[in-house]
Amino acid sequence: MTPMTPTTQIPDRYERGLARLREIDGEAGEQVVAGLADIAPDFARYLIEFPFGDIYSRPGLDLRSREIAVVAALTALGNAAPQLKVHIQGALNVGVTREEVVETIMQMAVYAGFPAALNGLAAAKDVFAREAAG
Amino acid sequence: MTPMTPTTQIPDRYERGLARLREIDGEAGEQVVAGLADIAPDFARYLIEFPFGDIYSRPGLDLRSREIAVVAALTALGNAAPQLKVHIQGALNVGVTREEVVETIMQMAVYAGFPAALNGLAAAKDVFAREAAG
Amino acid sequence: MTPMTPTTQIPDRYERGLARLREIDGEAGEQVVAGLADIAPDFARYLIEFPFGDIYSRPGLDLRSREIAVVAALTALGNAAPQLKVHIQGALNVGVTREEVVETIMQMAVYAGFPAALNGLAAAKDVFAREAAG
Amino acid sequence: MTPMTPTTQIPDRYERGLARLREIDGEAGEQVVAGLADIAPDFARYLIEFPFGDIYSRPGLDLRSREIAVVAALTALGNAAPQLKVHIQGALNVGVTREEVVETIMQMAVYAGFPAALNGLAAAKDVFAREAAG
Amino acid sequence: MTPMTPTTQIPDRYERGLARLREIDGEAGEQVVAGLADIAPDFARYLIEFPFGDIYSRPGLDLRSREIAVVAALTALGNAAPQLKVHIQGALNVGVTREEVVETIMQMAVYAGFPAALNGLAAAKDVFAREAAG
Amino acid sequence: MTPMTPTTQIPDRYERGLARLREIDGEAGEQVVAGLADIAPDFARYLIEFPFGDIYSRPGLDLRSREIAVVAALTALGNAAPQLKVHIQGALNVGVTREEVVETIMQMAVYAGFPAALNGLAAAKDVFAREAAG
Repeated sequence: MTPMTPTTQIPDRYERGLARLREIDGEAGEQVVAGLADIAPDFARYLIEFPFGDIYSRPGLDLRSREIAVVAALTALGNAAPQLKVHIQGALNVGVTREEVVETIMQMAVYAGFPAALNGLAAAKDVFAREAAG
Repeated sequence: MTPMTPTTQIPDRYERGLARLREIDGEAGEQVVAGLADIAPDFARYLIEFPFGDIYSRPGLDLRSREIAVVAALTALGNAAPQLKVHIQGALNVGVTREEVVETIMQMAVYAGFPAALNGLAAAKDVFAREAAG
Repeated sequence: MTPMTPTTQIPDRYERGLARLREIDGEAGEQVVAGLADIAPDFARYLIEFPFGDIYSRPGLDLRSREIAVVAALTALGNAAPQLKVHIQGALNVGVTREEVVETIMQMAVYAGFPAALNGLAAAKDVFAREAAG
Repeated sequence: MTPMTPTTQIPDRYERGLARLREIDGEAGEQVVAGLADIAPDFARYLIEFPFGDIYSRPGLDLRSREIAVVAALTALGNAAPQLKVHIQGALNVGVTREEVVETIMQMAVYAGFPAALNGLAAAKDVFAREAAG
Repeated sequence: MTPMTPTTQIPDRYERGLARLREIDGEAGEQVVAGLADIAPDFARYLIEFPFGDIYSRPGLDLRSREIAVVAALTALGNAAPQLKVHIQGALNVGVTREEVVETIMQMAVYAGFPAALNGLAAAKDVFAREAAG
Repeated sequence: MTPMTPTTQIPDRYERGLARLREIDGEAGEQVVAGLADIAPDFARYLIEFPFGDIYSRPGLDLRSREIAVVAALTALGNAAPQLKVHIQGALNVGVTREEVVETIMQMAVYAGFPAALNGLAAAKDVFAREAAG
C-alpha cells in the first residue's frame, strides 16, 4: 500500500485522482487504467478525474465508509465481479478489516438476496487468498 | 428514538430483533411490521428475526457502517424507494450525519449511474424535510 | 373471468393470443392493449401474438405454474409494479390461491432480498383489496 | 436424491433446514455450505436456517412450485449463474421435468428479455449434460 | 429549445456542460440542477461537468445517437422513470422523431422484456402529451 | 458480411427474420440458433420470428440506431456478456464504426455507472481483437 498523501489538497483533478486511485486500488487500479490505453484512453482519464479526483477526494465521508458503501453496492448489483474484487482489496487497503468486509457482504443477503451475498463472499475469498499468496 | 439496550446480548432472536428494529428504523419499522399483519404475519416475524435478530445484531461491523452499506445498496439497486427512505432515516437514527448520507448517495453515481444517485438524493431530501417538519 | 376455450388449438396466433390474454389477465389485459392504441398499435399486436399466442399457449407447463413463475420474476426484478399487479390478478384468475401468491412472493426474500418481497406483498395486498371491493 | 423425510415436522430450524437443503439441492447444496466454512461459517448456518428451515419448510406452496419460482427469478435477474444451476438441478430433484424447466426459462424471454432466457437455457443445457454424464 | 452553440469548442468544462445540458434537456435539465441546490450543490456541478461537459461534448457520436442510446438504456434498466422522461424529451429536442423514440423503446422488449417496454411507452405517451399541451 | 437483401419486404416472418439475423449477427447469430437445437428448438424459431422477423424488420428506425440502442442497453444491464459481444459485432456489421461503439459504451458510465462501462469496453476490446485476428 502506498503511503498516504493528503490528496484532498492537490489542486489538479487528474493528479489528485491518480494519487487517490493508487491509495485505494493500488496496482489493480493502475492495471484498469493501463487496460484502457488502446481502446478508450480518454475514459481512463475520466475514471481518474471524476470518481477519484472529484468524488473520492471529498471530505464529509471517510475512505473506509466509502469503500464499505462500494463493496455493498457492487455485491447487491451482482453484475460487476471484477470491480467488486478490486474494491474488496481497496477496502482492505484503506483499513477496513476482513471481518468488516465479510459482514458488509453478508448484510446484502437481506437487501439483495442470498445469491448476491454468496457470490460476494466467493469474491472476498478469492481476494483474501490472493493477498495471502502475494 | 428509543434508548439503546445492548441488543446483542438478548438471547431470543425475536426479542433481540424487535429491539434492533426499533433502534434502527424507529416508527417506520413498526409500521412495516404492522402493514404485514393481515397479509403475511409470518413474514413480519421473519423480518424481525433474520435481518434484525441475526444480521444487525452481529458484532464485527458497527451499526453506522451497516446503515451506510444499506443506503448505498438501495440507492444503487434503485428499485426499492420506500425501503431506501426507511434506511436513510435509520442511518440518521444510528448516528450517521446528513452530510454522510448525501456523500454515500453521491458516491453511487460512480457505481450505478447518475439517475440512481439523483433518485437517492430526492429520497434523502424527502426524509430530511419530513424530519425537520416532524 | 372469461370461460376457458381450448386456446392452444386456435390456429391463428393473434386469435389464440387474444383468447389467452383474456383468460389470464382479464380486463386488465384488455386495458393494456387499449392503452397502446394511439402510441404503438403494432406493439399491442406483438404483445398478443408473442407472449400470449406463442408462449402462454404452449403445452409443457400448466398456466398456474406459468403465473407463479411470472409473479416470482416480477417481484424479484422489482421494477415493474403495474405488470406485477396484473399478473398477481392473472395468477388468481387461473386458479393460484391467495396463499400461494403470498408464498411465492415471500420466497423472493431469499433470492432478491426483503425489500423486493415487501414491495411484492404490498402489490398483492392492493390486488386482493381491489378484488374484494369489486 | 435423498429419501424424503417429512421435514416440515422437524421442530429445530437448523435440522429441518439441513434436511430440506439436502432434499432440494443435494450435493450441490452441501458444497455451498462447505465452501463457506472458512470465510463465513455463520452465513452457512443462516442459509440453512432461514431459506431452508423457514421458507422452504412452509406449507402453502408445494416444492415443485417453489423451485419453478426460483428458476424463473434467477433467470430473470441474470446475475447469479451458479445459483441458477443449483436450482435447475434442485427443480429436477423435486420432480419438475426437464420440459417444465425449459418452459419456465423460455417464459422469461417475455418478462426479462431474450438474453436472460438464452443464458438460462445455456445453464439448463449444462445441468442436463452433467446429469446425463453423472 | 435553445439555439445550438458549438459546445465542443467551449474550453471550460462547466460552461460547455451547461450549454450542452440546456441544448439537450432544456428546462427539465435546469430544474434538475435547481432541485439539487439545497441538498447537494456540488453534485449539480458534477452533473454539468462530467456527463454534459465531458461525455456529451465529445465528437465521435452524434447527439441523436447518444439520446437513442440513453432512452434505450433507461427503458431497459426500468428503475429511473423521471430521468427516462427527461431523456425522451431530450431526444426530441436534438432531432429524434417520435416514431424513432417509440421504435427504440419497442426494441427493448427483446432485450429487457415486455414490462420494461410497456413502462417505457407509458413514459413516452406522457412526454408526448405534455409537449402537445405545452 | 452477407450481402443485404431488402429484408423488410419478405412476407414470411421466419424467412424475413432469418435474413435479418444473418445480416446483423452473421455467424454468431447462426451459432446461437444452432445451440438451441437440442434443448429448445421452438425458442430458436421465436428468436428468429419475433426479434428479427418482427422488430428488426420494422421501418421507422435505421439498423445502425437499433444496434446502438442494443449495445447501450446490454452494457447498462451488465448481465448478458455473450449477447453484448454478439451485438457489438452486429453493430459493426451494419455500419456502426468502432469509435461509435466505444462512445456508446462510454456514455453508459453516466447512466449505469463506471463498472458497467468498463465491462462493456472490455467486451468491445475482445470483439475488436477477434475481428482483427479473423
